[in-house]
Amino acid sequence: MGKIKIHSNNLLLDYYELTMCYSYFINKKHHEQCVFDVFFREIPYSGGYAIFCGLEDIVNYVTNLKFSIEEINFLRGRYQFSSDFLEYLAKWRFKGDIYSFKEGSVIFPNEPIIIVKGNLFDCQIIETYLLTIFNHQSLIATKASRIVNAAIGRGVMEFGARRAHGSEAAIKGARAAYICGVIGTSNVIGDYLYNIPALGTMAHSYVMTFDSEYEAFKHYALSYPNNTTLLVDTYNTLKSGVPNAIKIHNEVLKPLGYSLKGIRIDSGDLAYLSTKARQLLDSAGLFDTKITVSNSLDEYLITSLISEGAKIDAFGVGEKLITGGGQSIFGGVYKITAREINKILVPTIKLSDNPSKTTLPGFKKVYRFYDLDHKAIADLICLNDEQIDHTKPYLLFDPVYTYKQKEVINYKIELKTIKIIEKGKVIIDLPTITQIKEHCQNELNSMWSEIKRLYNPHNYYVDLSNPLYELLQSMINKLRV
Amino acid sequence: MGKIKIHSNNLLLDYYELTMCYSYFINKKHHEQCVFDVFFREIPYSGGYAIFCGLEDIVNYVTNLKFSIEEINFLRGRYQFSSDFLEYLAKWRFKGDIYSFKEGSVIFPNEPIIIVKGNLFDCQIIETYLLTIFNHQSLIATKASRIVNAAIGRGVMEFGARRAHGSEAAIKGARAAYICGVIGTSNVIGDYLYNIPALGTMAHSYVMTFDSEYEAFKHYALSYPNNTTLLVDTYNTLKSGVPNAIKIHNEVLKPLGYSLKGIRIDSGDLAYLSTKARQLLDSAGLFDTKITVSNSLDEYLITSLISEGAKIDAFGVGEKLITGGGQSIFGGVYKITAREINKILVPTIKLSDNPSKTTLPGFKKVYRFYDLDHKAIADLICLNDEQIDHTKPYLLFDPVYTYKQKEVINYKIELKTIKIIEKGKVIIDLPTITQIKEHCQNELNSMWSEIKRLYNPHNYYVDLSNPLYELLQSMINKLRV
Repeated sequence: MGKIKIHSNNLLLDYYELTMCYSYFINKKHHEQCVFDVFFREIPYSGGYAIFCGLEDIVNYVTNLKFSIEEINFLRGRYQFSSDFLEYLAKWRFKGDIYSFKEGSVIFPNEPIIIVKGNLFDCQIIETYLLTIFNHQSLIATKASRIVNAAIGRGVMEFGARRAHGSEAAIKGARAAYICGVIGTSNVIGDYLYNIPALGTMAHSYVMTFDSEYEAFKHYALSYPNNTTLLVDTYNTLKSGVPNAIKIHNEVLKPLGYSLKGIRIDSGDLAYLSTKARQLLDSAGLFDTKITVSNSLDEYLITSLISEGAKIDAFGVGEKLITGGGQSIFGGVYKITAREINKILVPTIKLSDNPSKTTLPGFKKVYRFYDLDHKAIADLICLNDEQIDHTKPYLLFDPVYTYKQKEVINYKIELKTIKIIEKGKVIIDLPTITQIKEHCQNELNSMWSEIKRLYNPHNYYVDLSNPLYELLQSMINKLRV
Repeated sequence: MGKIKIHSNNLLLDYYELTMCYSYFINKKHHEQCVFDVFFREIPYSGGYAIFCGLEDIVNYVTNLKFSIEEINFLRGRYQFSSDFLEYLAKWRFKGDIYSFKEGSVIFPNEPIIIVKGNLFDCQIIETYLLTIFNHQSLIATKASRIVNAAIGRGVMEFGARRAHGSEAAIKGARAAYICGVIGTSNVIGDYLYNIPALGTMAHSYVMTFDSEYEAFKHYALSYPNNTTLLVDTYNTLKSGVPNAIKIHNEVLKPLGYSLKGIRIDSGDLAYLSTKARQLLDSAGLFDTKITVSNSLDEYLITSLISEGAKIDAFGVGEKLITGGGQSIFGGVYKITAREINKILVPTIKLSDNPSKTTLPGFKKVYRFYDLDHKAIADLICLNDEQIDHTKPYLLFDPVYTYKQKEVINYKIELKTIKIIEKGKVIIDLPTITQIKEHCQNELNSMWSEIKRLYNPHNYYVDLSNPLYELLQSMINKLRV
């Protein structure tokens, strides 16, 4: 048996990135400038908003990507690329510009979240893993945000490592969840790498390695008297688990000057069991002992438990958070929007037999309009050289139903797509995880609750500026066969 | 900006593994022997079978796991573990035994797939990441197998890297898919690490960087004349893409002595477009030009396209394979089944308020019964010390509906849970990926088609031996309060 191979992710790119780059290279097109947008078309879970996550890793990836001799030699031996192409690739570093929403931002369909501007080679070669990071981390952030919202103030803990799609999914998923308001993770490596509080007590196996549940609880309480949370559903929650937990409080913890911190229920009818357990605890005077529940929870089950009046203080959420639950895909795409012709950047468009797959042309930017209470009104996608004078009224209109119009006055605007990488170098201070978490909370606070609703949320307005709308129409008309 | 942190996954473990191990340690229980089973309770996608994947990584993980000084110091600074515990942890290596189904095997609910036997410390500390690997890779393998079955002989290509849940998910997902019959991956690193053929041609962006679709196709064809597959849906598949592709064949490839290898359609109604495209190609004499399609495909869409008579030679399957599609969770669990009491291994059981969560007690093994044509009849879970004489009739019975019985004669049996690690050392030659792929195909061939059906498959029999059944009943009766 060999050692575990710790490898770089440099070659985590689709083969077609290489075939395209090679064709650009031999056709001497690889230095032509172009612009690509990362955007998505639909909010997962029929929700009203998504959360952007992954920027830190994308920045690290793009600015560190470099192919090793070993990787170049692999490509040489395997595929039919010319030596001068492989030499170029061996020396290659990303030298383009990147504009992006801040990590932790609330984002909406069709607006460019990340904009990559550079030569064709630079823009193409980073596509695959950039999208992997964007899609995965934004999916988990969006799901986590929904779950945290559903718990309306109760703690949510991320418990999903064992059901994650590999180690990166476990680690980055815990980070995304923490950014969106989860209070801790089961995963020690989340604490090691990101200072996310690691939480946990015992598994059923612990209880089963002692001669009785009482013995197990006693040994655990003696190991952690100041932090005793007992798993009460190994045999029978109400007849055995909770009574034994109360006994432990009275017979073991209280004499030592401690009290029982909590119990956890991991199976059965959580509404019924938590309510009955609360009664038993309260009858024993254990009013401060917290009840945590787990077992395939998600935002829908949490909402249902709370509305039923279940006596739950905190939720442990595992598989349905860390995998995205019922929807495991965030559909971020990477599309070219402009390219250099005779030294001038010219907008491009992709029509499609699916009309929703038509792309927005041109090098663009995104503004968010706020009212004077800092509640978001709409996002506006416009061309990069447009200027908006926020002291003057601005006419927003729906790009599909153009008669839906609204003139806004007394508003503030904020540029959301900020330049973060220039000529391959990071030009901003990247925020800490705590700052990203705060930014995410601020963004959510700026959204009306109608947007954040679990079912049938209001569609937030994402409008096009008039110049962008005109450009889009003229290009569609020109290309329509 | 710092460098990308390449870190080990040693601390990818749930905090409760540490709290339990610490409690065992201070109670001097950590050397007690025990047995844990990895099993799952339900087949994803309402399917009739699952595929076990991930054993190679599990073996690598378990046999290499070792905590670094840096990791130990982190634990020391962060949590309240004693120094002698941390010293023990710093020197710790896994010294237990592992029995397992072979990687690529067809597996069923409730049977132990992996059995870990060792001391409490060893068994507990490896739980989290072992389950992560098992659950992730078995999920993708199971999904891939369903998709490959649905394509009934047509090629299926794994195109999902950009929607995978991180790099490990992309890489291990491609490997799992390849084991289950996918012919290649879009992902270069899959080729680099596992020799999985990397496939791909061009994105829409390639077409859009030229002044016309024809120009783009021409440059591509000249770059790869012996392997020209053209993406035909950037503007209009039937009015522009396919006619241009045919022109390229006639005007560029044919004069050079080549012919058009294929076209790819990535949007629109794939049944209609492929059929019309086939007509256009055939009318131009391009009978050998293959049609590949992609766009959110899965086993259901592929079945529907084929039944509609779509003219498709190969399917590129992305997001719904690499994320598990509509179901992103494989519910593998890790449960203690026996523990040492006075030097004797005694079965344990976990009852539950959810009856389906009750565990099968004891140190066990699994046999598969085959008829003389090597078609699988049933799996039998029995106690590890049971012997079965396959020259004598054997009475199989359903563990829930015990009146459902079948006496089998003229059968072969195969032990599925093979010892692969003894005292921490690998004692078998691990198979190559090609051997795992072959094993998977052989396993599928041994299953009746009723089991492999997409909808309403037959329930394969997983029975308990009489001694195991008796043990289970007696333990339930004893514990029932």
